[in-house]
Amino acid sequence: MVRNIHRADADTIGTLERLGVATVHEAQGRSGLMQPYMRPVWRGAGIAGSAITALCHPGDNWMIHVACDVLKKGDILVVACSSENTDGGFGELLATSLKALGAKGVVLDIGCRDASEISGMKFPVWSRAISAKGTVKASIGSVNLPVVCAGVSVKPGDVVVADDDGVVVVPRLDVARVAKAGEEREKKEAGTRARLQKGELGLDIYDMRKSLTDRGLKYIDGPLD
Amino acid sequence: MVRNIHRADADTIGTLERLGVATVHEAQGRSGLMQPYMRPVWRGAGIAGSAITALCHPGDNWMIHVACDVLKKGDILVVACSSENTDGGFGELLATSLKALGAKGVVLDIGCRDASEISGMKFPVWSRAISAKGTVKASIGSVNLPVVCAGVSVKPGDVVVADDDGVVVVPRLDVARVAKAGEEREKKEAGTRARLQKGELGLDIYDMRKSLTDRGLKYIDGPLD
Amino acid sequence: MVRNIHRADADTIGTLERLGVATVHEAQGRSGLMQPYMRPVWRGAGIAGSAITALCHPGDNWMIHVACDVLKKGDILVVACSSENTDGGFGELLATSLKALGAKGVVLDIGCRDASEISGMKFPVWSRAISAKGTVKASIGSVNLPVVCAGVSVKPGDVVVADDDGVVVVPRLDVARVAKAGEEREKKEAGTRARLQKGELGLDIYDMRKSLTDRGLKYIDGPLD
Amino acid sequence: MVRNIHRADADTIGTLERLGVATVHEAQGRSGLMQPYMRPVWRGAGIAGSAITALCHPGDNWMIHVACDVLKKGDILVVACSSENTDGGFGELLATSLKALGAKGVVLDIGCRDASEISGMKFPVWSRAISAKGTVKASIGSVNLPVVCAGVSVKPGDVVVADDDGVVVVPRLDVARVAKAGEEREKKEAGTRARLQKGELGLDIYDMRKSLTDRGLKYIDGPLD
Amino acid sequence: MVRNIHRADADTIGTLERLGVATVHEAQGRSGLMQPYMRPVWRGAGIAGSAITALCHPGDNWMIHVACDVLKKGDILVVACSSENTDGGFGELLATSLKALGAKGVVLDIGCRDASEISGMKFPVWSRAISAKGTVKASIGSVNLPVVCAGVSVKPGDVVVADDDGVVVVPRLDVARVAKAGEEREKKEAGTRARLQKGELGLDIYDMRKSLTDRGLKYIDGPLD
Amino acid sequence: MVRNIHRADADTIGTLERLGVATVHEAQGRSGLMQPYMRPVWRGAGIAGSAITALCHPGDNWMIHVACDVLKKGDILVVACSSENTDGGFGELLATSLKALGAKGVVLDIGCRDASEISGMKFPVWSRAISAKGTVKASIGSVNLPVVCAGVSVKPGDVVVADDDGVVVVPRLDVARVAKAGEEREKKEAGTRARLQKGELGLDIYDMRKSLTDRGLKYIDGPLD
Repeated sequence: MVRNIHRADADTIGTLERLGVATVHEAQGRSGLMQPYMRPVWRGAGIAGSAITALCHPGDNWMIHVACDVLKKGDILVVACSSENTDGGFGELLATSLKALGAKGVVLDIGCRDASEISGMKFPVWSRAISAKGTVKASIGSVNLPVVCAGVSVKPGDVVVADDDGVVVVPRLDVARVAKAGEEREKKEAGTRARLQKGELGLDIYDMRKSLTDRGLKYIDGPLD
Repeated sequence: MVRNIHRADADTIGTLERLGVATVHEAQGRSGLMQPYMRPVWRGAGIAGSAITALCHPGDNWMIHVACDVLKKGDILVVACSSENTDGGFGELLATSLKALGAKGVVLDIGCRDASEISGMKFPVWSRAISAKGTVKASIGSVNLPVVCAGVSVKPGDVVVADDDGVVVVPRLDVARVAKAGEEREKKEAGTRARLQKGELGLDIYDMRKSLTDRGLKYIDGPLD
Repeated sequence: MVRNIHRADADTIGTLERLGVATVHEAQGRSGLMQPYMRPVWRGAGIAGSAITALCHPGDNWMIHVACDVLKKGDILVVACSSENTDGGFGELLATSLKALGAKGVVLDIGCRDASEISGMKFPVWSRAISAKGTVKASIGSVNLPVVCAGVSVKPGDVVVADDDGVVVVPRLDVARVAKAGEEREKKEAGTRARLQKGELGLDIYDMRKSLTDRGLKYIDGPLD
Repeated sequence: MVRNIHRADADTIGTLERLGVATVHEAQGRSGLMQPYMRPVWRGAGIAGSAITALCHPGDNWMIHVACDVLKKGDILVVACSSENTDGGFGELLATSLKALGAKGVVLDIGCRDASEISGMKFPVWSRAISAKGTVKASIGSVNLPVVCAGVSVKPGDVVVADDDGVVVVPRLDVARVAKAGEEREKKEAGTRARLQKGELGLDIYDMRKSLTDRGLKYIDGPLD
Repeated sequence: MVRNIHRADADTIGTLERLGVATVHEAQGRSGLMQPYMRPVWRGAGIAGSAITALCHPGDNWMIHVACDVLKKGDILVVACSSENTDGGFGELLATSLKALGAKGVVLDIGCRDASEISGMKFPVWSRAISAKGTVKASIGSVNLPVVCAGVSVKPGDVVVADDDGVVVVPRLDVARVAKAGEEREKKEAGTRARLQKGELGLDIYDMRKSLTDRGLKYIDGPLD
Repeated sequence: MVRNIHRADADTIGTLERLGVATVHEAQGRSGLMQPYMRPVWRGAGIAGSAITALCHPGDNWMIHVACDVLKKGDILVVACSSENTDGGFGELLATSLKALGAKGVVLDIGCRDASEISGMKFPVWSRAISAKGTVKASIGSVNLPVVCAGVSVKPGDVVVADDDGVVVVPRLDVARVAKAGEEREKKEAGTRARLQKGELGLDIYDMRKSLTDRGLKYIDGPLD
């Protein structure tokens, strides 16, 4: 268990939060996205924060309690598991604790219980399953060491962005570059959006007709039947 | 890419839309239903329209842009993929484009991104996953050739019906027959519903007691424990 | 088919309903929880009742109709299947019938159709899938014999508790003991919750620091990078 | 942990072993078959024996060691798990132990490690996965209480039959009836086999042509294209 | 049920059989491959033949018996199912029948039982699962109408090629073109293979270095750590 | 693409190869094991080597060709993919190339084609699927940057150990420690094995009876039925 970690700049984290998962994922070169089985327990939240990492074992949530000892305001707890498991190692009591400690949310590669209460508290949680299955506190894992969560390598202090589209991780030292690229992408998309709303085609806006023909696309008038 | 296709009669399409997936599926003899992993991005939409088909490759959404070139008002875009893939090849910008072009909705055997924005736009999308994973525009597939989408063969111009129960496909030439059978089924079910609401049993309404006994069902008074 | 079964005491069933799935599951020693693929068709319901069991075959819902013959007010119908199947063997007409008969809800290890109508009726259903796939009435299964549903053994008269967290089964003869243990757990958790809300750590409340060190957890100040 | 159990008659167990999984499953009315994810670690074994049951927790194989204390010659160890888990809780050392104790084989609703060594020893194992993932010995489960394993309820002393087709469980008190029905089925199938080998059709042997027409099968000469 | 179908030329079918699945799939433009869950019951077979199609319902194998009535020497039976199902609708007795009728093999989007006996008979079977689960003969499906099997549209008379790599379907009218393209591919690969065996790199044989640089691949000497 | 990497000492790699996956995984503290869906294309191989890493995109195997440029004798190629994909990006021609270059084997978080030829060549391959699905060469990924493969973080130069039990990864700098711990474990297990073969129980060898009682295990004589 490692007590102290480096964290990214709060303003940049704020920018990533505003940009959201899809834009951040594209802006950092289409990497860092957790597998799509990671779903929000309730829809509508959008957060970003510094990762506190915990590695648990299947059916055991002990390290989540340990992680609470080092969580700071604005952090996001990322829980990995040493093998595939959907047990409900996180519920309303832990959500209460994390909320009191100022955590922004939790990302669980295990299950979440008390789905209804957590939705009512509006505490943001992403998980691989909703399951009431209870867990034990018996095996030592790790806190604030690098983990793999839902297919993505997460180091403590990396920035986690999560919304209805899933969860993406930005390495701490790339945060400024990604935020900048994201804002540029956002501007560019605003222009594209306006043109698409008028009925212009992506084929023309992105100028794809020639490359389609070059790659061999053939046009037939039809109908064929 | 085939520019022109035959479409079914708009009134009949309207009837199928009103009947909904479950009734249409039964009315055409329990065929044409896509696999149940196809779920709406937001609940509450119910649409029917003529299929424009696109075949993409995994991680590549180029053909969706091509398909926009031949979409007409009221059509539904059906996107198949040459192997199992959940990448988010359809998002808010494409939804904006399709809405501007008059498409009724989209059926994706891949992933959908921008779930929150698309829900906000009330643009109807069914997909096998929600995923922010970005895609490239590199490989030629096809537009308006027959495809297999979520286990169902779809030809351009077939009528797609989609609601909270999933997605069903009606071959273009069967549309009138299925609509008629669906309306008859609907009427018959109204009578059954009224009897069930009064507490009558399906066993009696459908007259199943004798055939149950013939097939060997035995009655024991019990309790057995 | 067995006509009569023993049922648990209504007051105790009411207590279990109020306690909910997660607490009941813990209170009976972390057993009896159905697999987490069992999800509510609509969120927000929380029920408990005596199990009427039906065993169907894949693609066949005949035994659900038979089970209606023995359902009493307050019961919950539990439908198992002889192999994995997601066909929509339960829909709005059956929901209408069960509601008229006073059933509290349905637990389906198969699919549910008419998701929208059933949500509108506020009739509680948990299922492994939403699917419009129609079923036949051709094969004899059983009603009110023991079944395995979503990984849990269910005997007729066992108490089923279901909410947004899933479905748990309490053996009929354990009901009083489990209800009592659940109420004690509830009280204890209220105290814990109050302390967590003030920012106290689970590590301290549950007094886990020493056992963590005993098991070998090491503390490093960090940061490591 | 229950030390003593009733076992079925050894001769009848021998008959079930000879009949094999498919015939036994049919003979007892198409019930008792574990889910098809249960596969042999090596192909070619065919065994039957009395079930010793163990319930483990995910990532924990402690109860397998406890079960060894009550295993008798000819028994089959059946290991269930309180939630879905593929960790390798059984390997070559445990196989060595069970072989020394006279066990006929093992059925694991978890993972098996040391696949190569166990294949070399010709010790029969069926499991849901092959995985080297290590397990702990931390949580108490049960031995010789009823469990659900791969979708089937197993009581200690029930007869387990396993071969390349999977695993089927026969309730201890039904063993004689099922063995007799299986032998009759075997004889009947021998006659059918001889007729099929000569090129006779099942349609004629089982006399199905009329019922097919009654159910609405229509014959078209074709070809249709 | 359609009695007569068109079949492709036997010599061309022989060529496709010799070329095998991977080459045929590439030769027809990377289409027609069934999903990879379709696996051989025993390894080492490689066949091609004209498709006889059967559509069954889950847990019901009646239409396989009907299909036997129209199978001719050299045909391959393709069994689709109206929803996902792994029940063992095909076993040793049916394999005996099909062998006697001259069928080359069977492709099942359901389960196969009697895996050991069928392996011993060396009768080629591909299936989505091995399962002893018995099936009924209760519901009418179709024989020799187009079906979707494991994600691929199959029309009666299409040529099915199957080996250890899986199953690919060639539309009947494309057979000559695909066989020719496959043979050309085979020749070209022989040259490539010889060069690779000498240690030449694909980068050079396929002349990919420039396009890699054009697409932005950057070279770093390293090591980076 | 990074040309040069650090590699571990060849003797230590040899020790890890001899110890095998299960022992190495335990020896390094039960970490580094890839998910159990990673299976050998043919059984019986057991290898260890330095990882060359490649990151591909779904349906695209271009980076495998690039990786061949930096492979040295004794290396193992580890192929990750930016999203879940089973396409057959590795086949007999690439196996021929890698064999000629001296690679020990390949670990693919995608599909493998030409299963039969590769088995015949005795070239060791682990993959998540066998699939003939062809791939393109269109998108730039990376070679010799850290990747996540089947749930495990792999850095270039880490040692990969693979056999019938799956695939485990040892960080390059931990190799000596893990090899030593593995050899100690091996010795200890030899003693345990000898005792188990004589019929001693694990309960006694590991001295677990007291801790079982302490944790609450209760003994009942039975039988209970």
